[in-house]
Amino acid sequence: MAVDVDAGLVERFLLELARHGAYGETGVWRTVYTPEWTAAQDQVAGWLEDAGLEVRRDAVGSVWGRLAGSEGGPVVATGSHIDSQAPGGRYDGALGVIAGIVALRSLREQFGTPRRTLEAVSLCEEEASRFHATNFWGSRAIVGAIGPDEPDRIRDRDGVSIGEAMRGVGLDPGRIAGARRDDIDTWIELHIEQGPILEDEGLQVGVVDAITAIRHYVVELRGRSDHAGARPMAGRLDPTAGFAEIATAVIGVALESGPPAVTTIGRIEVEPNLPSAVPDVVRFTLDSRHPDQAAVDAQHARQEQLMREIAERRGLQISWTTPLDLPASPSDPAVVAELERAAADLEIPFRTMHSGAGHDTQNIARIARTAMVFARSKDGRSHTPEEFTSVEDAVAAIRVLATALHRLAY
Amino acid sequence: MAVDVDAGLVERFLLELARHGAYGETGVWRTVYTPEWTAAQDQVAGWLEDAGLEVRRDAVGSVWGRLAGSEGGPVVATGSHIDSQAPGGRYDGALGVIAGIVALRSLREQFGTPRRTLEAVSLCEEEASRFHATNFWGSRAIVGAIGPDEPDRIRDRDGVSIGEAMRGVGLDPGRIAGARRDDIDTWIELHIEQGPILEDEGLQVGVVDAITAIRHYVVELRGRSDHAGARPMAGRLDPTAGFAEIATAVIGVALESGPPAVTTIGRIEVEPNLPSAVPDVVRFTLDSRHPDQAAVDAQHARQEQLMREIAERRGLQISWTTPLDLPASPSDPAVVAELERAAADLEIPFRTMHSGAGHDTQNIARIARTAMVFARSKDGRSHTPEEFTSVEDAVAAIRVLATALHRLAY
Repeated sequence: MAVDVDAGLVERFLLELARHGAYGETGVWRTVYTPEWTAAQDQVAGWLEDAGLEVRRDAVGSVWGRLAGSEGGPVVATGSHIDSQAPGGRYDGALGVIAGIVALRSLREQFGTPRRTLEAVSLCEEEASRFHATNFWGSRAIVGAIGPDEPDRIRDRDGVSIGEAMRGVGLDPGRIAGARRDDIDTWIELHIEQGPILEDEGLQVGVVDAITAIRHYVVELRGRSDHAGARPMAGRLDPTAGFAEIATAVIGVALESGPPAVTTIGRIEVEPNLPSAVPDVVRFTLDSRHPDQAAVDAQHARQEQLMREIAERRGLQISWTTPLDLPASPSDPAVVAELERAAADLEIPFRTMHSGAGHDTQNIARIARTAMVFARSKDGRSHTPEEFTSVEDAVAAIRVLATALHRLAY
Repeated sequence: MAVDVDAGLVERFLLELARHGAYGETGVWRTVYTPEWTAAQDQVAGWLEDAGLEVRRDAVGSVWGRLAGSEGGPVVATGSHIDSQAPGGRYDGALGVIAGIVALRSLREQFGTPRRTLEAVSLCEEEASRFHATNFWGSRAIVGAIGPDEPDRIRDRDGVSIGEAMRGVGLDPGRIAGARRDDIDTWIELHIEQGPILEDEGLQVGVVDAITAIRHYVVELRGRSDHAGARPMAGRLDPTAGFAEIATAVIGVALESGPPAVTTIGRIEVEPNLPSAVPDVVRFTLDSRHPDQAAVDAQHARQEQLMREIAERRGLQISWTTPLDLPASPSDPAVVAELERAAADLEIPFRTMHSGAGHDTQNIARIARTAMVFARSKDGRSHTPEEFTSVEDAVAAIRVLATALHRLAY
């Protein structure tokens, strides 16, 4: 049984949603609890109503649309997030929100009332683009994983706490617990791939069988600042030279391990950062991922060992924190199988693959069976106004989602 | 013939000069053409007058004291700079200014009128700590090496041009050419070592036989930003990984060459500098020095070759500028011999060595025979409030200077 999807509607929704927080020609700058975010959520609520769904907003501002099933019972839900990077593109998160609206609208129009209740959600915050010390705010609220101190503690660059920002859009941070759900049986998130694999292989759609484990190390490597000319090489405690060796070694761990291991050093900061001075300190981030938990544990252990060995041999002090540490999140095999079957039935070229990016789905996996659908990204780009997914690829992915939802709920 | 130096006077001058622009307990923040700089130059002028010298200020604000010789003719001059790093210490530059005052005062008091004219100078600017696009302002004025566009072009962080700053302290930037000298025969600058070599070898004084060549590369290594999870390792154009390999290679050139080659990467800047993104660009500085011109030419050629090779192999775009490129400046062998003989006669433990730092002397070498005297630095520190040279070591170095000046001028 195939579900049809109106490509014109998908394109219109993408363009209209992108107006809220539009940035340049093709970008979006829409961070949580801002006026442009509020306007986008209002837009989503309107589309959910137009689709004939029962609309409500939860305690953190995620917008839900419900298509009640004749049998009641646990819910089959789909959705993604409405906030963007700063700036980001039109598709990351937004496409999954639109996919949920369009899928439930198409299912209702073509098949009427389902057996099981279907819900589509526009989650409030995933990117940590306004509040750098948090992310997954919407999905963490759903699974009860927001700490009681977080609303006051977590602040944006202007010092506004996320609790104050909530009050600014009419939400009460004392009621966050009310967003918790215990009635979601199955969750499927549609998202752009954000990588080049589908494009490289000429495929439109990916079925996600696991979300990668992600650990962020923030490493401080401390040496001793010296005059770049007057201090001979022999007596130096040069954290730049140590950093270079560490960077090559930890990136080498991922290279030697081979796919799907990845390791990235994305941020480097040096003190005092002067051309004629050996630095005192090099601080850097290490992002290390693998979708298999045992493999990632070994990868992290090896990288930590190398960092310690290199620092010690060079007389440098090293320390780190791990502000982000997310375990691998395997998808539910039965939900994966439904998505694979839907794609096969629809004759949409697809592959099963892991997600190298983190997603709200890994939180919802604590309370529900989960999987994800990827739509092909152009050039593997994301987190930039240049990210792009064609309407054709978006429609293909939404058809896979809607067909699987039909199988699960009708 | 030994010249005696009043240690109490040296100590008093050091402490009193350090009051102008005092920073914390032991630091100085005294950049050119500021009120604290003006106060320091006024202080120096007063001390030169007290020493019985004829005082004048040149067109860029350097303060000169003259002890006319009975025979007239070309001048034997000494001095250093009055400006500091931001913040710096009490000794860098200041000790050489004080040394000139104390040496000429001691010579006049102990030996009367010289045969040849002696001058001591407090140069206005050496550090580039206020105007980052220039340094050696005082010594470049002396040798006529300030370009006609520089007074308007070179600006501090507040946008004030160095010409405006000159006018602010009563100097006319249109008259810079008037600072030019063609009558200096011999120049000796006393300076703190700024490195650990004298301390490591238990010596008080260094006689400088060459000032290192210095080239600063500002390198831009451009790759392609990608999602740290969604882009597999294989397709990346990662400028951090490329930077790490380049850093190890170019530092390795200095290590393999051995002393006195040095290479430092002191500044690193990354875009977009996010933990979860492969960077687009890594920019860094490469400071590469050797006191022998042929050796440094080979060193730079090898480092450029390695940077190009590594970038090309990795598919990264590389480009650089060389905003600082100073040739090696050998000292005059006869002046070095006079200083060595003075130190030997005074039984002061010394060695002949090169300067790994740049100095005004390398400019004055264009018009005069030059050499330098180093005083031992504690822990090799400089460009920091922690820099320290004991009064005993300062006096030993000033005695070597004064004894050599005696030999040259009496």
